[in-house]
Amino acid sequence: MFRKLLIAGVGLIGGSLALDARKHGLAEEIIGYGRPGKNLKWAKQTGVIDDFIHTPEKTPEGIDLLVLATPVETVVPLARTFFSRLASGCLITDVGSVKEKIVREMEASLPPRFHFIGAHPIAGNEQWGAQAAREDLFQNRKCILTPTNLTDRKALAKLRRFWQKLGAEVILMNPKVHDQVLAVVSHLPHVLVYALVNTLGRTRVDSIDLKEFCAGGFKDFTRIASSRPELWRDIFLLNRRAVSKGLADYIRSLERLKRMIDNGQGAALEKEFALANEARRRIS
Amino acid sequence: MFRKLLIAGVGLIGGSLALDARKHGLAEEIIGYGRPGKNLKWAKQTGVIDDFIHTPEKTPEGIDLLVLATPVETVVPLARTFFSRLASGCLITDVGSVKEKIVREMEASLPPRFHFIGAHPIAGNEQWGAQAAREDLFQNRKCILTPTNLTDRKALAKLRRFWQKLGAEVILMNPKVHDQVLAVVSHLPHVLVYALVNTLGRTRVDSIDLKEFCAGGFKDFTRIASSRPELWRDIFLLNRRAVSKGLADYIRSLERLKRMIDNGQGAALEKEFALANEARRRIS
Repeated sequence: MFRKLLIAGVGLIGGSLALDARKHGLAEEIIGYGRPGKNLKWAKQTGVIDDFIHTPEKTPEGIDLLVLATPVETVVPLARTFFSRLASGCLITDVGSVKEKIVREMEASLPPRFHFIGAHPIAGNEQWGAQAAREDLFQNRKCILTPTNLTDRKALAKLRRFWQKLGAEVILMNPKVHDQVLAVVSHLPHVLVYALVNTLGRTRVDSIDLKEFCAGGFKDFTRIASSRPELWRDIFLLNRRAVSKGLADYIRSLERLKRMIDNGQGAALEKEFALANEARRRIS
Repeated sequence: MFRKLLIAGVGLIGGSLALDARKHGLAEEIIGYGRPGKNLKWAKQTGVIDDFIHTPEKTPEGIDLLVLATPVETVVPLARTFFSRLASGCLITDVGSVKEKIVREMEASLPPRFHFIGAHPIAGNEQWGAQAAREDLFQNRKCILTPTNLTDRKALAKLRRFWQKLGAEVILMNPKVHDQVLAVVSHLPHVLVYALVNTLGRTRVDSIDLKEFCAGGFKDFTRIASSRPELWRDIFLLNRRAVSKGLADYIRSLERLKRMIDNGQGAALEKEFALANEARRRIS
């Protein structure tokens, strides 16, 4: 399908993509790009990638697929540093959790000999590094592609097939709509958990260490607070508007519940909780 | 240790307590109290309890331990209906997630021939009914006892041994302090999740069904929204003041994060997230 695949950022997502691309024969050669250090060496030793480079200048000739799997803030500036090294007709894509800004800026600076399509596979967990990579990470997961009216239809069909071969269910979405959806289902929960864990840390009840009294539910609930701080900082900054709107809606909804609790409105509370109970059941 | 144990409410907690009391030989006979229906029949058939009653009038003579394992609002009124049927010296306790109001009201109406001590084993999950009961549910879990200056020290020592034999780590706490601690580590997370799931249900982005795009993290995160609505309604109403204060603190903390996002304060955001990351690591 592709001759030479360059993956910038061989972590949980980039590394898993490498493993699966090889497994399904979607690329003849896979090169990793990243900082010097253990990560890329380990990835090469264990066969996740065939080789690696630390600077765009070292990019081998003939790259026909570039996947940017680095933190969202870095995607566009990093992509630009590769432009002069890529084969004509190269397909460029990313895996970032925010799409509108990335797609707009990429399309504004993309030389016409390349194609860019934003992608966001909804998979992963709070682990990181190539050692977190695993086969079939994208199996039965959704992968959202965010084409625009500038997108080349052939390139889109090719990227769609690529993700389908990795087992993903491909969905096309407007980049702005993508960001609004993800703000609610993913970015908002992260804000809530960060705030909760810090509220816990700041609350003093006598000299009791509140952490000692967290039951299993709390641990499940706050697992996502183990995600990388700098990664989430960037996601919030890049998806600022949608996250802020989601957060405002959410704060209003909390204030409503608080009024019901303050006023002892049992029936109204039970109705809210039953609604949530039912909605939760419908989450597949 | 006890001759006749009466458990009002043979569900996840009451049923597990019955299983463990039998396993460790802590009661010669175990009787369940509850509404007519399949639950108590099933509990008797499978040996969770020896027998059951549906009305306090049917209480057998010689009950020396009464455990109230019903929803928090019902604990005190239900306990009162048993007073005329219990053996003198009977130890009465509960397993509710809220303590101050229960302890205060119980102590106000308790005949002097009985002892009451509030208890809260921090164990359980979102399942319910006797079929959810299992052995060793309390093993290595904390059980908070909330004695007051009215508490009989011998009765306290006995209840303490009882929970220790079930494998729990017993902690003594003032009832009010208990409620403040639980408001933050348990009650607050439930409000947040109920509000999040309903925000998700109310948000419209084009005609997209947001539930389709919830990743694994969201499911972990919202698992507690599967808890029973009426149970949590009662907990919030009974622990109104502490939950309301915790919620107010939390809303302030969200508003702070929202300002950082709105103003693009990346460094401040990262600092908050790193703090949460570190605090989360320290949750055992």
